[in-house]
Amino acid sequence: MDRRSFLTTTAVAAAQPKAAAPRLTHLCLNEDNSHWFFTRAGQPQTAETISAFIDQYANTQVREILLSANSQRTSFASKVWDPIWKGYDPKGPDDQPLFQSTAREARPNARKWVDTAWRLAEQGIDPYQLWIARARQKGLEPWISMRMNDLHNVDDPASYMHSTYWREHPDQRRVPWRFADTRDRALDFGHPEVRAYHLQLVREYIDRYDLAGLELDWMRFGFHCAPGQEAETGRHITEFVRETRRLLDRKNRRLRLGVRVPSRPQAAIELGMDGAQWAREGIIDMLVVTPFWASIDTDIPIELWRRLAGDKVTLAAGLELLIRPYHAYRPLQFNSIETVRGVASSLLSRGADRIYLFNYMDSQTEMPDRENYPALLRECGRLDTLAGKPRRHIVTYPDTQAPGEPTSEQLPRSLQPKQWATFRLHCGPAIQKPRLRLGIEGEAPAEVRVNGTPCQPSGRDEDLKPGPKEPVHAWTVPQAVQARAVVDVQARAPLTIHWVEVASST
Amino acid sequence: MDRRSFLTTTAVAAAQPKAAAPRLTHLCLNEDNSHWFFTRAGQPQTAETISAFIDQYANTQVREILLSANSQRTSFASKVWDPIWKGYDPKGPDDQPLFQSTAREARPNARKWVDTAWRLAEQGIDPYQLWIARARQKGLEPWISMRMNDLHNVDDPASYMHSTYWREHPDQRRVPWRFADTRDRALDFGHPEVRAYHLQLVREYIDRYDLAGLELDWMRFGFHCAPGQEAETGRHITEFVRETRRLLDRKNRRLRLGVRVPSRPQAAIELGMDGAQWAREGIIDMLVVTPFWASIDTDIPIELWRRLAGDKVTLAAGLELLIRPYHAYRPLQFNSIETVRGVASSLLSRGADRIYLFNYMDSQTEMPDRENYPALLRECGRLDTLAGKPRRHIVTYPDTQAPGEPTSEQLPRSLQPKQWATFRLHCGPAIQKPRLRLGIEGEAPAEVRVNGTPCQPSGRDEDLKPGPKEPVHAWTVPQAVQARAVVDVQARAPLTIHWVEVASST
Repeated sequence: MDRRSFLTTTAVAAAQPKAAAPRLTHLCLNEDNSHWFFTRAGQPQTAETISAFIDQYANTQVREILLSANSQRTSFASKVWDPIWKGYDPKGPDDQPLFQSTAREARPNARKWVDTAWRLAEQGIDPYQLWIARARQKGLEPWISMRMNDLHNVDDPASYMHSTYWREHPDQRRVPWRFADTRDRALDFGHPEVRAYHLQLVREYIDRYDLAGLELDWMRFGFHCAPGQEAETGRHITEFVRETRRLLDRKNRRLRLGVRVPSRPQAAIELGMDGAQWAREGIIDMLVVTPFWASIDTDIPIELWRRLAGDKVTLAAGLELLIRPYHAYRPLQFNSIETVRGVASSLLSRGADRIYLFNYMDSQTEMPDRENYPALLRECGRLDTLAGKPRRHIVTYPDTQAPGEPTSEQLPRSLQPKQWATFRLHCGPAIQKPRLRLGIEGEAPAEVRVNGTPCQPSGRDEDLKPGPKEPVHAWTVPQAVQARAVVDVQARAPLTIHWVEVASST
Repeated sequence: MDRRSFLTTTAVAAAQPKAAAPRLTHLCLNEDNSHWFFTRAGQPQTAETISAFIDQYANTQVREILLSANSQRTSFASKVWDPIWKGYDPKGPDDQPLFQSTAREARPNARKWVDTAWRLAEQGIDPYQLWIARARQKGLEPWISMRMNDLHNVDDPASYMHSTYWREHPDQRRVPWRFADTRDRALDFGHPEVRAYHLQLVREYIDRYDLAGLELDWMRFGFHCAPGQEAETGRHITEFVRETRRLLDRKNRRLRLGVRVPSRPQAAIELGMDGAQWAREGIIDMLVVTPFWASIDTDIPIELWRRLAGDKVTLAAGLELLIRPYHAYRPLQFNSIETVRGVASSLLSRGADRIYLFNYMDSQTEMPDRENYPALLRECGRLDTLAGKPRRHIVTYPDTQAPGEPTSEQLPRSLQPKQWATFRLHCGPAIQKPRLRLGIEGEAPAEVRVNGTPCQPSGRDEDLKPGPKEPVHAWTVPQAVQARAVVDVQARAPLTIHWVEVASST
């Protein structure tokens, strides 16, 4: 048994002190509930070809592989929830009733997911069982991740993705009196029926699978309470988590329980997802703090989370695939290996035990620089393997707030001549002579400083991916930057700053 | 000994379990370092007339009276810092050198503070010694509050208010290379000389006065670190607080130590004022979480603070005299008894042990409805005395962020026809049939809901003080509101909302 597989054995890991130095950190990888079925459609499958999907994560920094197995429907032959192929006629045309509300051009693709899952069920194959078994063979921890309130396609109530339960209970939505926002149509966990409905699937997951852990993914899509009722409904959600703990314990006391909650503590509490309290209570083993989807959050306050959640819990910092400087920014862009290295370095240096990759899959929903996927899996879970590699730290924002809770964005920022603006970002371990980049609409600033030190203009940087559509002005920072960087910019002429970045010099 | 004075005895109070139900809550009152000297100028004073100032706070809900005794200079005859009258010629004209940089029309008033303090010193009277003695007689806890980095008048480096130290060490300012903001000229506690200079005054306070507690007021003005150096300088500040604890313990182990820090946990940490950690470490007894000055913060996350700071510390929620819905809002307005009742009810219901009144003095810097001052002191420190009295809960914002840290404001909010906006506020204990008020530029909204319940239009409310300059539309909320209220507003025509309020029906 080599050192790595020794350390990934569950029982040993549980006994290992969390505060030991150097901390052992890893990656978590979430495989979503449709990606494999879409991308493997039409390919002949055997138990071995299905299982082999896992092998790419063996002998990488991935420790927990979290297999998402449902949105509103399940991708396996559930006995308690609707499987994704419910209502599917495998011999019917693309415009059969199940897909009728789907746009004509999207039907063939929708069918891929449904058909792949249906075929496996027909053959009596449960891919999750195969993946779990292979993951264990390969020294990975196989988890099932349960999406608690998925809202894909809710603008189309007849979509093939929806459960009968969701369709039949519009009265149990969190904002039944309006449809101004996707999130209005989330189920309201204030209703006991909604909780009972979800607990059925929790039970099935625990009974059906030889899982190492179960994750309750409260961040798909993050809204479970009627507005203003979050405190009371949050108590019901806490009881739901406790009940899940009891069910896991009944099967096997070593089974781990995880949750995904918003990246900012107050938002998590205000939205009824009190993960820090669940950690303190000892009912969860892994706490994933994460944005929802719109952008990575490069300033998750890990130190604050640690204080709130305590030392016993495995604290995972969640990444998403998209990156934006502020919510309204367009076009949408994706992270690359360099921006992931940046945010991972920062969050690990702030005390995260895991970097949790969501939507970083092996195809389709993936980094545009797909050639770096193997490196991603081998570098971005540990500070020692990140050290010295090119990385970029970019100002973003947290994408999840409770209803009415104010947003907090540093960008965009407009300045008049002589006016100063200040930006704040976290850059992780020391970077010698970093490069500062600003995406600017307007003339170059009069003066730029990082942590008080004047920076030297260093031309323009082009074709950054991801990067701003505005021209990128660059500066050399003459001193090392570690942890916090405060960027002060003084305008010469009117300008608007859309992008702020500190990168290792290349 | 009656029950109240029994409970205010320090030793008994220290032994009293903090989590006992019902919690005993109180007021803290900060008397600033100039108000008495300005407002009592020209009045003949004896030891008795000076002492009598305290009597108005006896037999009220005030438990700790915090006597601020310095800004950059001291209002008593300090042996280690400059007294406010340094350089004062009592026989000279108003345009003597000390006041020469002060605007001509402001000189007579400036002189009042200086002259009153000088006269007492000439008579050998230290008013703080008198106030402390009287406070003890009256069952109050007398504290000295030390302003750690006062920035009044720093736009005028020659002002009579400045210390020789500040004037002579421009290199020890936190942003020595710029003057874009008052806070740039704060002293930088990263310099050992700055810490040593302040520790001299700490020692003098502890040696000189028979104090029950010493408060380090880090919120005057809240900026003590060079931008980007907050983590390192914060460690020095923590060591400063530890050293103060040791000095207090050396005199008397029962002496209490308090600190004032920003109202939001992340801002406090990012600004190097880690009050929660000091509480966990057991070096402070009172933690005051407070905005700086621009507005009360009606949504201080007390629950989060409690989790971070623990149960042992006395957690005080700080009020200021001003109130604004957002930073740019004009004109400036002051709180009234009804808005104080609102914020105090809310913060006490969230678990604060104290409501801390800053700039709520007996004259000049006071509530415009001064006739309510006695009621303020007798009602606003306890939920039972607040119950059933008219109160107003108003959306405001936190006024203190670290350099570059984004602001978070709910207002103003512009809407296009059919668009919805959501606001979030905390209303404390249940209000039956509350009144919702919106300050609106534009036409009345199409629909308004509180916690999902449609509200009935109820005309306009005029002459609210404080209140928006825009017309105030009012609604009746047909159900009780407790703790969180989420307000949803849909526009009929373009409009901008500047003010959001939930009030008890009157």
